[in-house]
Amino acid sequence: MNNPLVDDRLVDLLLREVHPLEKLCTLPHFRDHDVSGMELYLENLRRFARDVLFPTYRRMDAQPPDWKDGQVRVHRDMHELYPRMLELGVVSATRPNAVGGHQLPMTVATAGHAYLMAANVSVCGFFGLTGGAAHLLEAFGDEDIQRKFMDPLYSGRWTGTMALTEPQAGSSLADIATRATPDPTASDPRRFRIVGNKTFISGGDHDITENIVHLTLARIDGAPAGSKGISLFAVPKRREEAGKLVGNDVCVTGLIHKLGWRGLPSTVLSFGESNDCIGYLVGEPHRGLSHMFQMMNEARILVGLNATGTASAAYQEALAYAKTRTQGRPVTERNVSRPQVPIIEHADVRRMLLRQKAIVEGSLALLITTAWYADLAEHDEDERRRRHAKGMLDLLTPIAKNFPAEWGFEATTLALQVHGGYGYSTEYLPECWMRDQKLNTIHEGTTGIQGLDLLGRRAVAEGGASLAALRRDVVTTVDLAARAGLEPAWGHAVLSSLDEAIALTQELGGRGLAGDVDGMLLHGYDYLTMMSIIVVAWQHLEIATAARSSSRQADERWAAGLLESARYWICTELPRTKHLASLCRTAESSYQTMESAWF
Amino acid sequence: MNNPLVDDRLVDLLLREVHPLEKLCTLPHFRDHDVSGMELYLENLRRFARDVLFPTYRRMDAQPPDWKDGQVRVHRDMHELYPRMLELGVVSATRPNAVGGHQLPMTVATAGHAYLMAANVSVCGFFGLTGGAAHLLEAFGDEDIQRKFMDPLYSGRWTGTMALTEPQAGSSLADIATRATPDPTASDPRRFRIVGNKTFISGGDHDITENIVHLTLARIDGAPAGSKGISLFAVPKRREEAGKLVGNDVCVTGLIHKLGWRGLPSTVLSFGESNDCIGYLVGEPHRGLSHMFQMMNEARILVGLNATGTASAAYQEALAYAKTRTQGRPVTERNVSRPQVPIIEHADVRRMLLRQKAIVEGSLALLITTAWYADLAEHDEDERRRRHAKGMLDLLTPIAKNFPAEWGFEATTLALQVHGGYGYSTEYLPECWMRDQKLNTIHEGTTGIQGLDLLGRRAVAEGGASLAALRRDVVTTVDLAARAGLEPAWGHAVLSSLDEAIALTQELGGRGLAGDVDGMLLHGYDYLTMMSIIVVAWQHLEIATAARSSSRQADERWAAGLLESARYWICTELPRTKHLASLCRTAESSYQTMESAWF
Repeated sequence: MNNPLVDDRLVDLLLREVHPLEKLCTLPHFRDHDVSGMELYLENLRRFARDVLFPTYRRMDAQPPDWKDGQVRVHRDMHELYPRMLELGVVSATRPNAVGGHQLPMTVATAGHAYLMAANVSVCGFFGLTGGAAHLLEAFGDEDIQRKFMDPLYSGRWTGTMALTEPQAGSSLADIATRATPDPTASDPRRFRIVGNKTFISGGDHDITENIVHLTLARIDGAPAGSKGISLFAVPKRREEAGKLVGNDVCVTGLIHKLGWRGLPSTVLSFGESNDCIGYLVGEPHRGLSHMFQMMNEARILVGLNATGTASAAYQEALAYAKTRTQGRPVTERNVSRPQVPIIEHADVRRMLLRQKAIVEGSLALLITTAWYADLAEHDEDERRRRHAKGMLDLLTPIAKNFPAEWGFEATTLALQVHGGYGYSTEYLPECWMRDQKLNTIHEGTTGIQGLDLLGRRAVAEGGASLAALRRDVVTTVDLAARAGLEPAWGHAVLSSLDEAIALTQELGGRGLAGDVDGMLLHGYDYLTMMSIIVVAWQHLEIATAARSSSRQADERWAAGLLESARYWICTELPRTKHLASLCRTAESSYQTMESAWF
Repeated sequence: MNNPLVDDRLVDLLLREVHPLEKLCTLPHFRDHDVSGMELYLENLRRFARDVLFPTYRRMDAQPPDWKDGQVRVHRDMHELYPRMLELGVVSATRPNAVGGHQLPMTVATAGHAYLMAANVSVCGFFGLTGGAAHLLEAFGDEDIQRKFMDPLYSGRWTGTMALTEPQAGSSLADIATRATPDPTASDPRRFRIVGNKTFISGGDHDITENIVHLTLARIDGAPAGSKGISLFAVPKRREEAGKLVGNDVCVTGLIHKLGWRGLPSTVLSFGESNDCIGYLVGEPHRGLSHMFQMMNEARILVGLNATGTASAAYQEALAYAKTRTQGRPVTERNVSRPQVPIIEHADVRRMLLRQKAIVEGSLALLITTAWYADLAEHDEDERRRRHAKGMLDLLTPIAKNFPAEWGFEATTLALQVHGGYGYSTEYLPECWMRDQKLNTIHEGTTGIQGLDLLGRRAVAEGGASLAALRRDVVTTVDLAARAGLEPAWGHAVLSSLDEAIALTQELGGRGLAGDVDGMLLHGYDYLTMMSIIVVAWQHLEIATAARSSSRQADERWAAGLLESARYWICTELPRTKHLASLCRTAESSYQTMESAWF
């Protein structure tokens, strides 16, 4: 049976009813597109993901890149896939025509990329990083830098990376030590000599394209200490001299062997071992970290989408398995001469499948919703609506990263569990996806860091403006849900959980302002968990409302299944938020009291 | 830094204060032992685990067994380890002197084996299976069978397996199809010809010993259908003929490539391809499944102990890493020129460590408590106390399997998370343990099956007698805790959760008796989760009480840490049981309503 990777019906429902592409087509920025053109783009990605990309997944997982004579070589399939992925327009789909992009909405690109990521997450990694790097140059580079680096990235002639992490500075970017010294031989004041080491650089070397541009954080000599002394540089693997590409003293000093994502090399890089590594300053000196946040925010959303894709593929695999694998009989069936039943008939298997389904649907809706706000934040004509959308995007970003990563790991693990002993065998796919999925709670900011970011910054910024924005949209959904005839208790439950969360946020914000920042942030993880559950409950309400009210909805049984996902989430997961809120409010103290020496 | 694998201080506290070995030494069965002898046995295992076994772990994980010319070959380290493990007495430590055992309590063996399992779970697999197979023959075999098979197993000359699973009968043992036909050439009525296929047989072939005895479930020609027509056979790889071992027509037809446990081969076996496979009936015809339950119950407890060991080793690794890896500064520290702090200083890292610690301590206490009841159930002089202990053992078995498997997987995953990006690299150990750990929710009965077993059988048997037994022991602990000066709220919380669980069990039992068995068992998973949390809360109360009241407790900081584990568990995990109970009571219906066609 072919794995569909992502449920087309849900994607169509989201793009037709919940966040209608029609509406985006009315915005001037997207005026060259119509819905059928967008759907064609989506359809191409779907087909490619299923027919071309997914069949390469297992063999790329089995044969990770190797590193010989200073050069990383990727799987040979990657060489064939690369130009074909470029043809699909995945690097610059959402960028303006002016820079060679297709000027498509993030909303439709997100939906399409979900299929690609479900098919082969490692392959997508190259393109996500390249697009993000180019976008950073688009936003902060001057014309010369853009011509030098952005154009080859958007065209896919070269690939890009984010070079942030150093051995002593992982989550703590303030401690970056890579140095940038003005190049005395250069007339160009943006030319610097770069010296330092970077680690965990995904796509940091490969043999697909002739060049790689590392968007690198480094410290200009004499810069202030900490995060306010970090600048952003474009550091190519090879630099142009007299019209030719020559080595730029960027060396691979290690290849990291990873549990998953085994098609995408993760490298240790050394810049300037021979003091001949040139980097070009991007944007303002010392503002590098702030510039880089654009790419980091985008990368966080991409991580959420990766996690969604992986969980979705694993769920579809488990569903197909559960429908065909027969084992046992209903608990009340005493007649053993009756044939065994498909395991989907067992309540506990259905529990595991419905939980996966609710997680996958919630994740996909959340990511498309986030993309929708990203589109409106940039392109809505109305300034007030742009600001509203910006607030939503800001609030949703850590949740869009965290929810699919954390719950998606659980979902992927359940897909393995549904397969029983076979799931533990490497001849089946779930174990691969479980290995892939684990990275998503770590890279682009661990879960703990997302919690601090959400509670410490985003939720309390501007007097909690983005939470107020969320409440407005949730109220709209609750009203629509009631009008569509959904159980009123569902809407009440979502709204009252949100109200409790808002009151809690005010209380915690007050605690922080009163000087007890540790107490405010102590349960950042629980706060993030709570907010994630609530936001996803809202997403389920949106899906269920659309499923109930859509006249186009041909498949009534499938629509009934969407309502069960919503019921499951609201009745079994949402009630957890009360306890989480109470842990935050009381600042339950066990791990604060616990001293390091007590372990 | 050397990983201690298991915390000696906790083991000592459990064996001195909570379940004192002294007390076991007063029982006639253990009269030849004294505490210092038992502690010496434990100390030998500890040392061997740390010095000999653990150093082999990673290389055995990296080089799984291979299968060539019909023969499985294990890692060469295994050949050296095997005789040394035998010398430690691990196969027959707890068996009576009469069969060549050391007649040691399960309690001390369990503590010692935790170290071995933490060091290298695959190596332990061979011995656990061999001991379990021999014990089955001890219980149900006649003298001749015992001489033929049990003696070589207990002596370690041969190894044993459980051969239950067939491709079409995994969790559904009633559907076993392997056939046993009386051997017409034999005067011995217990001699049968066996024909069939078995899969996922751990230790099913190897090149360590000259022979392997497969304790095999098969169906005698003409037997009733279902589980009441299954008989138990000892099927050797080679059988004795005229004083020589000759092939017994047992073929390896496949070697399963596993995600973890990579030192222990998992095989597909074919019996009687040439109709020349002889099996010897063990016990009564058609009672095979009932006999096999002895080994399955033992194996479930061993799985719990495996899971405990793995989680413990992973936790110790994460703890050491968190104490030495520096990264970032306290959230309130603005001065970036101050040195970075060990990550254990960050609240969220401490949360992850304390959660692991609470899971590991709870698991270890639970397993030792279960072993303690196993000892008393067999060897207490008082019939009423034996019955009480038997009830406790029966109730705790699925929990002792499930809790370490499910929460242990989470704990092991947290150990990886604490390591950040390094945790995702295969150069560090946590990813190995995560891969090992996942098996434990699957083998010897999946989590879903443990839930049905607990709620459908054990908790409701004899009018809920074993829950009543549990309540008596919990009340004793709560009283001791109060007298030791622990916060009275802790004891109240544990007892009131248990009382709610008991009331719920009566309600669910009534629902089943009234004919709604599906409704009764619908939330079997949630019921098992709830009971596991409550039982482990009780275990934490026991540990905390001992830590508080022990006069021998030299390390006060460590004792304070035990109290924080208890506080953490009781304040953050125990409150979840209310919601779980409510899901069971209301029979929340989403995955019951959800039809297969709605997915």
